[in-house]
Amino acid sequence: MKFFNVKTVTETLAVIAEEFRPVRLPVEVPLAEALGMVLAEDVISGEQVPHFARSTVDGYAVRAKDTFGASDSLPAFLTITGQIDMGRAADLYLHEGQAQAIPTGGMLPDGADSVVMMEHVEEVGDLLNVYRQVAPGENVVRAGDDVEIGETVMAAGHRLRPQDLGVLAAIGRTSVRVYPRPIVGILSTGDEVVPADKRELAPGEVRDINSVTVGAAARQHGADVIFGGIVKDDCDAFLAKAEELYRQVDFLILSGGSSVGTRDFTVQVMQSLGEPGVLVHGVSIKPGKPTILARAGEKPLLGLPGHPVSALIIFHLFAVPILHRLQGIRPSASDKRLPARISRNIPSAVGRSDYVRVKLEERSDGLWAVPVFGKSGLISTLAKSDGMVEIAANKEGILEGEVVSVYVFP
Amino acid sequence: MKFFNVKTVTETLAVIAEEFRPVRLPVEVPLAEALGMVLAEDVISGEQVPHFARSTVDGYAVRAKDTFGASDSLPAFLTITGQIDMGRAADLYLHEGQAQAIPTGGMLPDGADSVVMMEHVEEVGDLLNVYRQVAPGENVVRAGDDVEIGETVMAAGHRLRPQDLGVLAAIGRTSVRVYPRPIVGILSTGDEVVPADKRELAPGEVRDINSVTVGAAARQHGADVIFGGIVKDDCDAFLAKAEELYRQVDFLILSGGSSVGTRDFTVQVMQSLGEPGVLVHGVSIKPGKPTILARAGEKPLLGLPGHPVSALIIFHLFAVPILHRLQGIRPSASDKRLPARISRNIPSAVGRSDYVRVKLEERSDGLWAVPVFGKSGLISTLAKSDGMVEIAANKEGILEGEVVSVYVFP
Repeated sequence: MKFFNVKTVTETLAVIAEEFRPVRLPVEVPLAEALGMVLAEDVISGEQVPHFARSTVDGYAVRAKDTFGASDSLPAFLTITGQIDMGRAADLYLHEGQAQAIPTGGMLPDGADSVVMMEHVEEVGDLLNVYRQVAPGENVVRAGDDVEIGETVMAAGHRLRPQDLGVLAAIGRTSVRVYPRPIVGILSTGDEVVPADKRELAPGEVRDINSVTVGAAARQHGADVIFGGIVKDDCDAFLAKAEELYRQVDFLILSGGSSVGTRDFTVQVMQSLGEPGVLVHGVSIKPGKPTILARAGEKPLLGLPGHPVSALIIFHLFAVPILHRLQGIRPSASDKRLPARISRNIPSAVGRSDYVRVKLEERSDGLWAVPVFGKSGLISTLAKSDGMVEIAANKEGILEGEVVSVYVFP
Repeated sequence: MKFFNVKTVTETLAVIAEEFRPVRLPVEVPLAEALGMVLAEDVISGEQVPHFARSTVDGYAVRAKDTFGASDSLPAFLTITGQIDMGRAADLYLHEGQAQAIPTGGMLPDGADSVVMMEHVEEVGDLLNVYRQVAPGENVVRAGDDVEIGETVMAAGHRLRPQDLGVLAAIGRTSVRVYPRPIVGILSTGDEVVPADKRELAPGEVRDINSVTVGAAARQHGADVIFGGIVKDDCDAFLAKAEELYRQVDFLILSGGSSVGTRDFTVQVMQSLGEPGVLVHGVSIKPGKPTILARAGEKPLLGLPGHPVSALIIFHLFAVPILHRLQGIRPSASDKRLPARISRNIPSAVGRSDYVRVKLEERSDGLWAVPVFGKSGLISTLAKSDGMVEIAANKEGILEGEVVSVYVFP
């Protein structure tokens, strides 16, 4: 098979960044359904958080200047005029020389500007001895200290985590605008491929592993999945099924049979689905060279190699960034990989990115990445791995003890 | 409030490891529902993978010894006797001096032991010129090379990833025994706390942020959640509601109001729910000191501080390991944290573990952790953070430039 538009990994990622964006319009969902979804709006607060001045300690609300100079030997003397209840408005004004008991989280009464901690006072009937001075604002969170009205609390492109939902709830939002989960279609091809739930295999048959692994990985990365089943090595049947699935989904993944014929069909099918067609035909990478990337209209099409190991590695490298683009996700520094030292020399060819599966081992001197070797296509090597390490195209290999970045499989 | 059994973070984690295990019996689920679930069985293969010898290249199946000594100048001459089709049994025996065309993934016929690559042969009618010798087994994956019958492919306690489902499918499993998702009950307390969806707050009221954040975080870590709503600072009402929820769940989380009274009620309620009762009452940690851990029968009970920030930090530190125990998860080296350099000095008290929220920044010289400061309880600081850094109890602080481990919020 000839590859007519071979690109490097970096070039392929640049094509993905350039060519793809959210295909579907944002939707409004209730907060309870928004975990893991990606914001399609800049969230601007319409409220102050907290919306009243609160005490951060158990103690007495006071005017700070009434306590100035107070010490163990020379306490300030104040009059206790009330007690603030949790969850209630503090509606008794606090005048000069007065104090009101206040619990942690209680509302500061008008007139007060600070709170003296319980540990620094003594109650004597209605009188309060204050043994420590406080500054204005001490032990108080002011209205709007957490979030101000008009403040942008979160920007579009952010994937919502539990704490983000907490901020949205705090500012009174009950729903939020997000990008819908992209729908991924998966179609397997190959005369040898039979459904994964077939109990007894005939000689020459293999189960459809890629639908299982790629389907699960797509769900892990925020997509819903429609399985198109398996088509045999027949170009017309392949095209008919691919067209049907293409219409239902936002992103079509074709998991190629390993025969030459099927790979050629994949290119033909991709070219037939719509303009501009094939963008990348072959990537200088091992494993995974026969990767094909195309666009038909707005929708990405990805042709994965047939071998389960290659297919899943290519999924992590290219389908995950495509899914990020379809969900409008902005890259963040927390996508970082895990540094570890490699446990042995690994040679590699210059001009090709190699991806080596590794197991992580915690040793007394830190984290080590131990390569998991095995013939191409052995799915068990992937199950034994914690992640993968890239040997960049400009390197001839990596040396034992060298620090590498491990992409940890989620 | 007095803490009567204060422990360090390490001691608390040891209590968790000692006291908790799966509460419910394993269940059998279809593979399609098993992503993220935890294996409750050692999986032993009943099949060979692949279940027949396969070619890893496009070429000709041969007997290796027929090619010995073959070179460009002195090719071996073989007779082509057939062609192997994908997905079909290779039922024509291969005799000495013969070759059969075979595609990548095709079944090796009996009699053959290796495959010569297409690039190294020339077809001349029925004759095949072979220009390169191959060794026995070359370009072939033997039956059982990936997985052998009787091999343990995965051990109990492993959380199922896409590639693990792939291996299970490859060995013909259509369902698998896993621990059920634990059910977490969340009950919020405090006279000031009102439902998160209340539009207009009265003075003194705050929305129930902890149910939102802790509920979402529990789901992220494999649990289903039942919300018990909000109870006011009334010990009888609190106990009645807690008992009702306790009966429905595997793990009860009480999110404490911040007032002294509520905290005392939490201890009483925990002691009333069952033996042995409170195990840890106070942790030497900042934020989060008023954390309470108990066991009632087999079920864990966790009392979180009322402040949203403290509550979520304590959730990550203690509720996540409890959820791991309830799901039978074995710790793995890939739980590792992300190393980064801290961008400024942070002082800390010896004898107390401090948790500092940080933002990750990629700079030209690597990854930096930039502390996100803010008064205690500001939920917006958590939404601005990518993770948190521990200053261990035996340290007086960390110095600018020091390498720290960042627990990245999922």
